[in-house]
Amino acid sequence: MVPHLITALTGPINELEQRILESMPAIERWFRLEWMEHTPPFYTSVDLRNAGFKLAPVDTNLFPGGWHNLTPEMLPLAVQAAMAAIEKICPEAKNLLLVPERHAGSFYLANLQRLKNIFHQAGLNVRLGSLDESLTGPTTVTLPDGSDLTVEPLQRVRGRVGLKDFDPCTVLLNNDLSAGLPAKLENLHEQYLLPPLHAGWAVRRKSKHFQSYEEVAKKFSKLMGMDPWLINPMFAQCGQVDFSHGDGLDCVQTQADAMLAKVRRKYKEYGINEKPFVAVKADNGTDGMGILMVRDAKELAELSRRALEKMGEAKDGQHVTEVLIQEGVPTYERMHDAVAEPVVYMIDRYVVGGFYRVHAERGTDENLNTPGARYVPLAFAEHNQLPKPGAKPGVSAPNRFYMYGVIGRLAMLAASYELEATDPDAEVYE
Amino acid sequence: MVPHLITALTGPINELEQRILESMPAIERWFRLEWMEHTPPFYTSVDLRNAGFKLAPVDTNLFPGGWHNLTPEMLPLAVQAAMAAIEKICPEAKNLLLVPERHAGSFYLANLQRLKNIFHQAGLNVRLGSLDESLTGPTTVTLPDGSDLTVEPLQRVRGRVGLKDFDPCTVLLNNDLSAGLPAKLENLHEQYLLPPLHAGWAVRRKSKHFQSYEEVAKKFSKLMGMDPWLINPMFAQCGQVDFSHGDGLDCVQTQADAMLAKVRRKYKEYGINEKPFVAVKADNGTDGMGILMVRDAKELAELSRRALEKMGEAKDGQHVTEVLIQEGVPTYERMHDAVAEPVVYMIDRYVVGGFYRVHAERGTDENLNTPGARYVPLAFAEHNQLPKPGAKPGVSAPNRFYMYGVIGRLAMLAASYELEATDPDAEVYE
Repeated sequence: MVPHLITALTGPINELEQRILESMPAIERWFRLEWMEHTPPFYTSVDLRNAGFKLAPVDTNLFPGGWHNLTPEMLPLAVQAAMAAIEKICPEAKNLLLVPERHAGSFYLANLQRLKNIFHQAGLNVRLGSLDESLTGPTTVTLPDGSDLTVEPLQRVRGRVGLKDFDPCTVLLNNDLSAGLPAKLENLHEQYLLPPLHAGWAVRRKSKHFQSYEEVAKKFSKLMGMDPWLINPMFAQCGQVDFSHGDGLDCVQTQADAMLAKVRRKYKEYGINEKPFVAVKADNGTDGMGILMVRDAKELAELSRRALEKMGEAKDGQHVTEVLIQEGVPTYERMHDAVAEPVVYMIDRYVVGGFYRVHAERGTDENLNTPGARYVPLAFAEHNQLPKPGAKPGVSAPNRFYMYGVIGRLAMLAASYELEATDPDAEVYE
Repeated sequence: MVPHLITALTGPINELEQRILESMPAIERWFRLEWMEHTPPFYTSVDLRNAGFKLAPVDTNLFPGGWHNLTPEMLPLAVQAAMAAIEKICPEAKNLLLVPERHAGSFYLANLQRLKNIFHQAGLNVRLGSLDESLTGPTTVTLPDGSDLTVEPLQRVRGRVGLKDFDPCTVLLNNDLSAGLPAKLENLHEQYLLPPLHAGWAVRRKSKHFQSYEEVAKKFSKLMGMDPWLINPMFAQCGQVDFSHGDGLDCVQTQADAMLAKVRRKYKEYGINEKPFVAVKADNGTDGMGILMVRDAKELAELSRRALEKMGEAKDGQHVTEVLIQEGVPTYERMHDAVAEPVVYMIDRYVVGGFYRVHAERGTDENLNTPGARYVPLAFAEHNQLPKPGAKPGVSAPNRFYMYGVIGRLAMLAASYELEATDPDAEVYE
């Protein structure tokens, strides 16, 4: 099934698509050269928003879930990319330890099953080790499809982490560490812990990511001879916000006001007849919780106590104190009347699949990563990341998805820059 | 479409399939470790024959044609593998020069178009440079599908080969050099020539390949705890044969007789109720020309003058003087009554696709690579190289194809050993 793409304002995006297609060899070479200097994250998913006049990443996930939303057709690509990744990290590996989130619904279990399958088919014994301290022995759960998953308690023995009778070469985190850095995973110098601890939300900040993304977007735009704004969402940050007491809200208001003015100027420059908005969200990850869409900075002053409290709540009982103010990018893609945003999945440096996150009850300027979202695989009849030479811009789903794959990889490259810049163990050469 | 597999003697192959599936992590790790020591050929296709009681490669092609017989679904895998290959060889590459065969029918042109497409989508400017000295300028041909291909004359300028205004980093041969080593391609020390000249049939010998394959098969069989014969076709060689004068035929007769006796013993050991045969073929490649299937060494003495002359003719007007005597492996796979043999395609270390070569007018003990052959893609509904956990041996096409992918990769690894052993520029450490 080829998703039917409807994009309200087709002008600049079709130009961008055209330019990206024409420049494919230059783009791929540019990525190859970047990957000579930088290490891609082990795996990444990137949420994109396509406004028609602009295409930008809005979230770069270094512990991607939702793998089961990819079509089975994409599995061979994922397996091949996983083989390439493992070969570089730990070719002699027999075992891979997968560390899942603590609380697992059936949606998340299906994701784990798929991940386990990918790495098993890449040639590894895969077992699941939980950070949950209340787990005392192996626990097996049955999935809706009838298959089983066993989660075992993590064991730390001196310098190594593993399970009973299972000593892995690589420990793959699918837990974003929102709850803090687990002692069991610290100072693992003998094993590969991927992604590294400082990629977890206990440490990571979106503002750092988008700072790196801005750098990447500028480099890429120079190569392409275009305005980086077409692919870069502007952002600002406030560091000391206490939503429950209202402290620091003035910073958020000032920054939101400034951002709205900036976006207005850009819209004027491009003749875009839209009302600008900004997204106010926690600077560390919250799985889509506590995001506020603001069209006028005054709205922030008028927020109810309950709304403010909700903003302050993050995942795993954490509190938001640092806030990201990001240019709002509306999504004008639709599948049968429902608002859709593309999500691109990567393993190592390779785009291995993607899907549309579709939400029938949400507007073009709203966050779609909320209950009620559906997932429609980007299951192209022929290719997926492969452009179709000769097709007119905007009419070919494979061409559209190649462009999405390029922007997704730019966000992945930004994450690579970001992780280098924030690495606590980095050697500094002066 | 899942090809319907019919295998006459299902015993040992199903056991082999079972063992290979169970050992998947060990097998994949074994390959990873082998690839740490050895470099895979750039691309490879391997013809397999599945006798039910035995599964063996019978031809390993280092200049594979027929890429257009792979399904479009396999294209993303091929592109991803090509990206991985290019990244290792020449990440800064902009240009790839593809050197085709001299004489090109529409079948071969479609193959070139597909190859060009794969490497273009991997991010390279691809142009075609011909060894044909009679070509004086760019020549454009139109393919049956309406697309164009332009072939240009190769230019050698000092240490580099290229086209007018086109200087490639990598030169990819899709010409098997049966006609000899072209001076234009010798001593290219500044560019990557892949596969290397000594992989061409002017230099390469099948007996060397099968000697390496025997070594690989023994190693692999030790890992699996099985008789290497189950995957290894026995062979012998005669070095001085002149078919037109009948000189050296006594060697062929003696070796064929000995081989038939060996096969008979093996058949007895396994209780196989079949009449053994051997394949007598040129020790250098002939694209399937001049292959003789012999059930009794006396047949060789009774061959007509015309039949002998035909045996002596090889591709591009070359004469056969070295002869390979190989255990005949019958093929008991069928697609709707037609005899079929699987062909596995690889780029770098990755299996990227395959198809069945099907011939309605040939028998189970005959060469299928002859006019009249059809090609049915191994287009599995879900995966291609990915096994399906839990399926019974012999009933799952993906499981069957995973096994084919393993044997195909063993032959590729043997080619890697072979090219190391025959490399004229190899540094020898004593």
